[in-house]
Amino acid sequence: MAPVEELTQRLRTFADERNWGQFHTPKNLVMAAAGEMGELVAEFQWLTPEQSAAVMDDLKAGARVRAGLGDVVIYLTRLADVLGIDLVQAALDKLEDSARRYPVERSRGSAAKAPGYHPSAP
Amino acid sequence: MAPVEELTQRLRTFADERNWGQFHTPKNLVMAAAGEMGELVAEFQWLTPEQSAAVMDDLKAGARVRAGLGDVVIYLTRLADVLGIDLVQAALDKLEDSARRYPVERSRGSAAKAPGYHPSAP
Amino acid sequence: MAPVEELTQRLRTFADERNWGQFHTPKNLVMAAAGEMGELVAEFQWLTPEQSAAVMDDLKAGARVRAGLGDVVIYLTRLADVLGIDLVQAALDKLEDSARRYPVERSRGSAAKAPGYHPSAP
Amino acid sequence: MAPVEELTQRLRTFADERNWGQFHTPKNLVMAAAGEMGELVAEFQWLTPEQSAAVMDDLKAGARVRAGLGDVVIYLTRLADVLGIDLVQAALDKLEDSARRYPVERSRGSAAKAPGYHPSAP
Repeated sequence: MAPVEELTQRLRTFADERNWGQFHTPKNLVMAAAGEMGELVAEFQWLTPEQSAAVMDDLKAGARVRAGLGDVVIYLTRLADVLGIDLVQAALDKLEDSARRYPVERSRGSAAKAPGYHPSAP
Repeated sequence: MAPVEELTQRLRTFADERNWGQFHTPKNLVMAAAGEMGELVAEFQWLTPEQSAAVMDDLKAGARVRAGLGDVVIYLTRLADVLGIDLVQAALDKLEDSARRYPVERSRGSAAKAPGYHPSAP
Repeated sequence: MAPVEELTQRLRTFADERNWGQFHTPKNLVMAAAGEMGELVAEFQWLTPEQSAAVMDDLKAGARVRAGLGDVVIYLTRLADVLGIDLVQAALDKLEDSARRYPVERSRGSAAKAPGYHPSAP
Repeated sequence: MAPVEELTQRLRTFADERNWGQFHTPKNLVMAAAGEMGELVAEFQWLTPEQSAAVMDDLKAGARVRAGLGDVVIYLTRLADVLGIDLVQAALDKLEDSARRYPVERSRGSAAKAPGYHPSAP
C-alpha cells in the first residue's frame, strides 16, 4: 500500500502548481470532503445490506465506489495536511479510546455497545 | 506516520474481538462515515475561512477536529477493508485523473477549473 | 400541519432577536444543515432496513429522529429564506422533472430507473 | 407557498405509481437525503461567504442550488411521511427548545451561544 505521506506530498504539489492553496481553507476542504462523501453514500442508498456487500462484483458500480472513496480521502488528506494533523495517528488514537470505552467482554456481538448505538438495534 | 496497514489490521481485530463484523456491511459503514463527517463539518460551520485556518490554535476545538478526522478515517478504512479497496491507491489514482483533467497551464489560480467549481467563484 | 411560512417567519425573528443574521450566510447554513443531516444518518447506521422501519416504536430513538429531522428542516428553511427560494415549490418542481424522466410505465418496481440508481439493485 | 401536505401527497402517489415504496425504508431514504445534501454542500464549497450570499445572482448556479434544495426536501418529506412525523411541527418544536436554551438577552450577537458553537468563533 502506498504510504499516506506520498499522497500528502502529491496533493501539496498539485495544489501549489495550480495556485489552488488559496481555496484550500479548512472550511472549504471539509465541505469538499462532505460533498464527496454524499456521492459515496448515494452509491449505496438503494442497495440492501446484502447487495452492498457484493457491490465490487459489479464492475461499473465498483469503479464508482473506488473513485468515490478516493475523492473523500483526497480531501481529508489535504485537510489534515493544512491543519498539521497526522491522519492515521488521529485514527489510531481514537481507536484506542474506543477500545477503552467498549471492552471486549462487555461488547461482544451487541451494537448496543457500539459507538453511535441505537436502542432498537439488536 | 503510522502506515494505513496497521490501522486496517487493528480495526479488523477490534471488530473481530467484539463480533461486530455482522454490523459492518458497506451500507452501514458508509453511513457511519457520513455521520462522523457531519460532526466534522459542524466544527467549522460558524467559523470564517480565516478562523477555520486557525482552528488548531484553540486547544479544545483542535482536539475535537483531530478526533473527528480520526473517526471519519476509521470508518473509511474499515469500509475499504471490507470492500477490498486500497484506500491510498484509490486516492492516488483519482489524483492522476485530476492532473489530466486540470492541466497546470490552464488551471492556475482559478477555482473555475477546479473540481466542483462554481461559476461565481473567482 | 403548520405552514412553512410560519416556520420561516419564526426563524427570522429568532435570528434577528439574537443578532445571528451575521452568521447566517448560505455557506454557513448549508454546513449547519449538513452537520445535522449527519446526526440523522447516525441514528440509522446500525439498523437493518426492517429495524429502521420500526424506529418510531422506540420512544427514545423516535424522539431523537424527530428532533434530528426538525434540526435539518430548521437550517434548510433558514437557508431557503436567506436565498429567496420557496422550499416546497422547489421540491414540487423537482418532482415534476422526475415524473418526466421516470415515466410510470417504464419504471414500475425497479430502482434501476430510480434517481441515484445503482446497477446491482434489483 | 404550496403546503407541505401537497408535496407529501404527490410524493406518495409518485412512489405508489412506480411501486417504489419497497425501496423507501427510512434507512434508504435518509441515505438519499444525505446524498442530495452532499450535492448541495458542493455547490458552496469554493465560494467565499460573500460569494455564497450572491449565489442566486448567477442563473446557472442559482438553478442548481434551487434544484439541490428541492431534492433534499423531497427525500426528507418522504422520510417524514414514512415515519409518521409532521416535518414542520418537528422543526417548530425544536425551535422552541432552542429559544429556551438561548435566551435573547444572553445570546445577542455571539455565535458562542449558538447551537454548534465553536470556541474560536467571535
